[in-house]
Amino acid sequence: MGGGVRNITRSLESIQKHWHPHLLAGVNDYDVKLVKVKGECVWHTHPDTDELFLVISGELTIQLRDGDVVLGPNDVYVVPRGVEHCPRADDEVSVMLIEPRGTVNTGDAGGPLTADVREFG
Amino acid sequence: MGGGVRNITRSLESIQKHWHPHLLAGVNDYDVKLVKVKGECVWHTHPDTDELFLVISGELTIQLRDGDVVLGPNDVYVVPRGVEHCPRADDEVSVMLIEPRGTVNTGDAGGPLTADVREFG
Repeated sequence: MGGGVRNITRSLESIQKHWHPHLLAGVNDYDVKLVKVKGECVWHTHPDTDELFLVISGELTIQLRDGDVVLGPNDVYVVPRGVEHCPRADDEVSVMLIEPRGTVNTGDAGGPLTADVREFG
Repeated sequence: MGGGVRNITRSLESIQKHWHPHLLAGVNDYDVKLVKVKGECVWHTHPDTDELFLVISGELTIQLRDGDVVLGPNDVYVVPRGVEHCPRADDEVSVMLIEPRGTVNTGDAGGPLTADVREFG
């Protein structure tokens, strides 16, 4: 990405569409992304990587097969690799994600919510 | 680390000493750490890794040999691998760091501020 300072609040203001991850910063071969979500994702798994969720605003429910994890602002949760999950947001939620570059948002499931990572304008 | 939800605000409340990184979460072989800093670090380089700084509260100056980068709350900046830097905080600053597990806080410089990563209690 190269060199500038990025502000999370201002970066989020420029995100228009739900479920479209935007690249906030890169650390070696890991991406730190921002995404706004509303509604339900698709049940999926990342077989090869953990996935970190940090809720910036709103309330995010990460549905797991053995129960829900509910995250509020400043809460951090890591879905371990291989664990099936399905994020859900009844109202809009802003989330920071940390995972290796190339991780697909819908994991092994695909479907209409699958989206490439976008650059901030 | 294993499975729980961690709240950044509450985790920071339990940090007593400046310059002691605490493990917030692990993502594969990367660590997400919280640290409170005040005063000046030591000039150092991480020859093999980028280092991401996300300021939670306060104002952090990352001194670089070609100028300062000043970060406020919600600002993110990545010091590229191999770039000499020296963080400085005139007042206490809370920071989130993302870097590979085993990255030493003072890089190649060592010295009295060198500290192992601690677990939250």
